[in-house]
Amino acid sequence: MTGTERNEYQPKKDAPIGVFDSGVGGLTVVREIIRQIPNEKIVYFGDTARVPYGSKSQETVTRFSEQIVRFLKTFQVKTIVVACNTASAYALDTLEKDSHIPMIGVVKPGARMAAEVTKNGRIGVIATEATIGSQIYANYIQALNKNVAIYGKACPLFVPLVEEGLLEDPVTDEIAGRYLSELIDIDIDTLILGCTHYPLIRSTLGRVMGKGVTLVNPAYETARELKSLLTEQNLLHEEPPGLGSNRYQFYVSDKAEKFVRFANSIIKYGILSAKTVNIEEY
Amino acid sequence: MTGTERNEYQPKKDAPIGVFDSGVGGLTVVREIIRQIPNEKIVYFGDTARVPYGSKSQETVTRFSEQIVRFLKTFQVKTIVVACNTASAYALDTLEKDSHIPMIGVVKPGARMAAEVTKNGRIGVIATEATIGSQIYANYIQALNKNVAIYGKACPLFVPLVEEGLLEDPVTDEIAGRYLSELIDIDIDTLILGCTHYPLIRSTLGRVMGKGVTLVNPAYETARELKSLLTEQNLLHEEPPGLGSNRYQFYVSDKAEKFVRFANSIIKYGILSAKTVNIEEY
Repeated sequence: MTGTERNEYQPKKDAPIGVFDSGVGGLTVVREIIRQIPNEKIVYFGDTARVPYGSKSQETVTRFSEQIVRFLKTFQVKTIVVACNTASAYALDTLEKDSHIPMIGVVKPGARMAAEVTKNGRIGVIATEATIGSQIYANYIQALNKNVAIYGKACPLFVPLVEEGLLEDPVTDEIAGRYLSELIDIDIDTLILGCTHYPLIRSTLGRVMGKGVTLVNPAYETARELKSLLTEQNLLHEEPPGLGSNRYQFYVSDKAEKFVRFANSIIKYGILSAKTVNIEEY
Repeated sequence: MTGTERNEYQPKKDAPIGVFDSGVGGLTVVREIIRQIPNEKIVYFGDTARVPYGSKSQETVTRFSEQIVRFLKTFQVKTIVVACNTASAYALDTLEKDSHIPMIGVVKPGARMAAEVTKNGRIGVIATEATIGSQIYANYIQALNKNVAIYGKACPLFVPLVEEGLLEDPVTDEIAGRYLSELIDIDIDTLILGCTHYPLIRSTLGRVMGKGVTLVNPAYETARELKSLLTEQNLLHEEPPGLGSNRYQFYVSDKAEKFVRFANSIIKYGILSAKTVNIEEY
């Protein structure tokens, strides 16, 4: 299935929001959505069979993302949140072109906030190799304000360290110190956490950067922008969904149990189960 | 394509050996094959689009491995080396059942050597979460010698540390110290490097474990066993292949350039190029 979708549908107010990520990191975005628009239903997909995306190519990440969008559309989702910086950087433009429902990535909202809060015009971005290589944060921010300088730094070890649970640990401090030293030397005053795993080591990052630096969490800004988008399009659900309406559904491409364990450490909602799907069939 | 293959063929002496891994780690096995049987042609496949396997389920790793075997058979390979501990642990039995050509994994040769060299009957295995969870090393070793005790330890950060190039680094020392401390306390005298990335931090592992512990590198043992297998089946190629015969071919599912860079740091042969294939189509 490529190009125009076979099953077009009109987005409805009481339909769920689709959210996807390469794995568990996107749950930091789900957490913010639940906080800010608690009446919405959510269908989440985490591509745990093919995680991580951050070291992979644009072509591959786009192909994976297209499969996931086709899967989410089987739930008649009213909008799709690309809760992965790498997929937002590499695939969002292509996904939007082929889709009739509104989509939102995590990069633009984060970029906009950073451009607003910087005072000295020096913004740092930490993210995966792919997101940094794409220059997407720099491009968005400079389109908003040409006088801002953006410094990107890929931090490939942060995701494995988070997934190993070393959220507060001397090793994570040491690695953060190495990755961030050049951003400190450059005297940035704003740092974008350009990967959905990074808010989980926010306190380490804040300590290493020092008090003078504002940390921007794109998850928070994305949830805010999602609320505006749904309001504008008259798609916001004002009432809580009824009982038994499957409020939050979680799907993964591999290892549902491990996902559930990690998910419950991020979202305090109590995720009881996740289902496994063979995403390559979509 | 499942079950019986559509294109059966008779393995021939001058056909290449197929080798596959989840990514670059299997090149440590290729390095040993080139050293021990230098007249052979090799077709290597690294699944860089879906790496790593070590945190994924048996079902997923088996599905991925079956696709790769179908791909390698398009080269009429005379044998297939599963140069990935996780795939050897999870998929080799299934792959062998469906195949008419000989296959060899990295687990059995490593297990056999460890059972031979231990003096105090206490063997440690370090590997990915999947390989440790499968208990495959313990099962093989105890089938050879019931009086041996095997202690497994998953070391999920070693692969990202190696891929980040921290081969000689205080952070790798610190993490190795944590992972290995319980194996030191248990007083093992033999340690199996049960992931193809680990020989690249062999000196760190040796330093942490101390001189009394023998490190077993399954890559070396696998190449030895491959030579025996080919000799037995009268498939060993005695003469160097002619000029222009594409001696070593490398395929990946993503990012050929990055692969080539890393590959050249492992194999001193001078890998000039690798080709990208869409492995999901096999």
